[in-house]
Amino acid sequence: MKETYIKEFLQIQPNNPVLIEGLPGLGLVGKIALRYLIKQLKPIKFAYLYSPHFPYFVLVNKKGNVRLLRGAFYYHKNPDGNDLILFTGDSQSQTIEGQYEIANRMLDFSEKYGVKTIATIGGYRMEPKEKPRVFIAATNHVLLEQALAAGGILSKAGSPIVGTAGLILGLSKFKKIDALCLLGETRGYLPDPMSSKSVLEVLKETFHFNLDLKGLDEEIVKSETMVAKLQQIEEKRALEAEETKKQDDKKTTYIS
Amino acid sequence: MKETYIKEFLQIQPNNPVLIEGLPGLGLVGKIALRYLIKQLKPIKFAYLYSPHFPYFVLVNKKGNVRLLRGAFYYHKNPDGNDLILFTGDSQSQTIEGQYEIANRMLDFSEKYGVKTIATIGGYRMEPKEKPRVFIAATNHVLLEQALAAGGILSKAGSPIVGTAGLILGLSKFKKIDALCLLGETRGYLPDPMSSKSVLEVLKETFHFNLDLKGLDEEIVKSETMVAKLQQIEEKRALEAEETKKQDDKKTTYIS
Amino acid sequence: MKETYIKEFLQIQPNNPVLIEGLPGLGLVGKIALRYLIKQLKPIKFAYLYSPHFPYFVLVNKKGNVRLLRGAFYYHKNPDGNDLILFTGDSQSQTIEGQYEIANRMLDFSEKYGVKTIATIGGYRMEPKEKPRVFIAATNHVLLEQALAAGGILSKAGSPIVGTAGLILGLSKFKKIDALCLLGETRGYLPDPMSSKSVLEVLKETFHFNLDLKGLDEEIVKSETMVAKLQQIEEKRALEAEETKKQDDKKTTYIS
Amino acid sequence: MKETYIKEFLQIQPNNPVLIEGLPGLGLVGKIALRYLIKQLKPIKFAYLYSPHFPYFVLVNKKGNVRLLRGAFYYHKNPDGNDLILFTGDSQSQTIEGQYEIANRMLDFSEKYGVKTIATIGGYRMEPKEKPRVFIAATNHVLLEQALAAGGILSKAGSPIVGTAGLILGLSKFKKIDALCLLGETRGYLPDPMSSKSVLEVLKETFHFNLDLKGLDEEIVKSETMVAKLQQIEEKRALEAEETKKQDDKKTTYIS
Repeated sequence: MKETYIKEFLQIQPNNPVLIEGLPGLGLVGKIALRYLIKQLKPIKFAYLYSPHFPYFVLVNKKGNVRLLRGAFYYHKNPDGNDLILFTGDSQSQTIEGQYEIANRMLDFSEKYGVKTIATIGGYRMEPKEKPRVFIAATNHVLLEQALAAGGILSKAGSPIVGTAGLILGLSKFKKIDALCLLGETRGYLPDPMSSKSVLEVLKETFHFNLDLKGLDEEIVKSETMVAKLQQIEEKRALEAEETKKQDDKKTTYIS
Repeated sequence: MKETYIKEFLQIQPNNPVLIEGLPGLGLVGKIALRYLIKQLKPIKFAYLYSPHFPYFVLVNKKGNVRLLRGAFYYHKNPDGNDLILFTGDSQSQTIEGQYEIANRMLDFSEKYGVKTIATIGGYRMEPKEKPRVFIAATNHVLLEQALAAGGILSKAGSPIVGTAGLILGLSKFKKIDALCLLGETRGYLPDPMSSKSVLEVLKETFHFNLDLKGLDEEIVKSETMVAKLQQIEEKRALEAEETKKQDDKKTTYIS
Repeated sequence: MKETYIKEFLQIQPNNPVLIEGLPGLGLVGKIALRYLIKQLKPIKFAYLYSPHFPYFVLVNKKGNVRLLRGAFYYHKNPDGNDLILFTGDSQSQTIEGQYEIANRMLDFSEKYGVKTIATIGGYRMEPKEKPRVFIAATNHVLLEQALAAGGILSKAGSPIVGTAGLILGLSKFKKIDALCLLGETRGYLPDPMSSKSVLEVLKETFHFNLDLKGLDEEIVKSETMVAKLQQIEEKRALEAEETKKQDDKKTTYIS
Repeated sequence: MKETYIKEFLQIQPNNPVLIEGLPGLGLVGKIALRYLIKQLKPIKFAYLYSPHFPYFVLVNKKGNVRLLRGAFYYHKNPDGNDLILFTGDSQSQTIEGQYEIANRMLDFSEKYGVKTIATIGGYRMEPKEKPRVFIAATNHVLLEQALAAGGILSKAGSPIVGTAGLILGLSKFKKIDALCLLGETRGYLPDPMSSKSVLEVLKETFHFNLDLKGLDEEIVKSETMVAKLQQIEEKRALEAEETKKQDDKKTTYIS
């Protein structure tokens, strides 16, 4: 394996499919969204993507077996509209050139299966006020309007979209493929299922497929409990630091 | 896209063109100069340069569309002398090999369009006393003399010219292309339109084209206000530091 | 040499061989195990592996001669079962792509000699309580069971296996080769022959070959003496640090 | 230029030539030695080596011209023995793969000109007591004996030789070329002409060519003055540090 390589182990014949991509990144927004889509839609796994630009370790599974880091493609027959091809994985590329190579390989693969539209999912670092907003950008005006109508908010001009979620949009213009990016607001330093939920709401409206999102609520409660705990620890630490500072100030005042 | 790639979308037939290059670097001297040339000369954009050695993110524009980082080539029909091809972009290469690859690709492209002379623009880190000086170096003696006559100052022997602005000169010797580098004096840590203005003055004299430089003055005023503010902040901080030191000295004197 | 390259200098005709791999890594567990196997079994060295991804220095030997960093393959005729091919070396790859390239090259080479099973050896960072345990993972269920029966413990699900020892397992699935990984518990920061001994015990039971392990005991005693010394130093330092802290606390208490 | 590339601009017909290599490294021992050889022997420059693995800047010369970083090959007709090909340059490779690529390219080039022996020069970090010693290693026993007879000392077994000076020896074994490495003892942090002189003494005896070494003495005096000054500064700083510490100790003693 000298280059990124896709191994297909099942033949699929998708009907006008849309590819949805979500890899690990800020707040794991894309990864959690895809994991949930896979859990709910129960699609068929049909191909793996391997790359020498992934980190050089393997993972042990429950049975003591081992596998390379990889991405996986899943196929979902959608009775209500476009079929879906889902893509997620363990990691993004560890090298610059690998980032471009992997995004290119995914576009070649999409072309082969007649994919005309790709949606990529990621996180956008911003303290969400209430419900996390979903910032969108797209290479096609109609697609953008659909996502706006579905609740997305136009991304701020000039803002960068880092990694695979961004490069797929940039490189899709060399193919006859339109692409949409959905970025969920997230603090970014912890897995953020609430942000993923916001993204999935916009996504399912944009592409007209059914998805029950209640299943994410349990995960959201857990993550909020975690955030609350971390905030308490943080506040306690801030208080202690202030107390220490006061003590220090006393000492120095006394001395001088 | 495995390698740096130039996509032409308009046919041009330049007359003995000179290529002028300016990418982001020290004080953004080259980038600001090229941006201003493009604003004033209103040239026609005819090609993009893409590279897997650019950073791996994309940029969102005002309409929510997205694009790869890239360089752009512009064509200006010059009634008074050589036609101009202008080149600027978002970024330099992030890898060593990419730096060489991009400069090479630009030289191949220049050859194709019959470019015999290239001017590259950059910054030279030095606190300018009055008006920023313009240091020059060239691969051809006549070209050097022309730029000296136009107000340039000979670069100090042994000084390095880093990045695309330098490599184009170094690699141009493998082609039948002469190249000139113009480096504007700059503090380097802030966008420096005044340095760009100095460079453009020398450039337009060297290559005999018309360019009204007044349009840069507004930008210069803004940047000087910014510099003045930063200096005030810096001075205040220095004073406070001195005060703190005096207090500290008192304390230690008292103790010992 | 643009790529990893294996130079064979002796023809061998192994009978259904098992390849055993151990390169420098955590606690040098793999390297020490292979060094000991080579010392005891006295196999024939028949090939070297070179790579431009190894560190860029050479080593001087006792006679003032010099050699590139490399890996070496050894052949052992085993009267009691499968023949053995042993592999160890000076270093792992210094680049990500090199890690994949070297593991791939070793698999191609194994295929050529009819290797159907590979065992890789490494360290697992964990403070061993008594005798170091041996964690195992395998790409084949029967192989896993054999190693469990021989005293191995199932690796924890989700744990990563870094470097060549892991990638060989991950990449072996693209060939008709089964692979087993044995990771000896080790503190990891010092050469750990005791951990290597544990691994070798499991290894020889799994693959039915004779190996007297007493020869490792001297090395183990030395390393334990070293660990004990380091612990004394560490404890002394901790005591001094505490003493200093007490003194400091006195001072501050006095002052405030 | 995608790869390391040698541009020949003069035809030479050397008689059984020995190649002598010295690039920038520890104490600049190799670079200074080669610079001096070139100054004294007045050889003919006949080829340049360029590489995309060199740093990505160019250098300005006295006339305001510019050049890529490069290595240069020189040819010296030696009436008393083997002709000499000398090689030095601005820099070593900045990447691991580049280090291997450049050493390989130099060996191919050597082969083309019938070079059967290469000598590489570098520094060895060690505080020299009197006159710097010269540590040697070689791929051929006769060559090693010659250099020992000429005053070299056998390199310590296990010691690494880093960079081009080492890799050329390691890689020369794939060609029918013998190679010798001479490492001059040096503190390493300053240009060290005295170490270069020691190396050149051994070198000229080994290969039987005339070389007046007095010309290096002026440079040595300068560098020793520099070292002496730096030591004074260092000693003064140490004294001040001790004084400060005493003062601090007084304070703390007083307080506690």
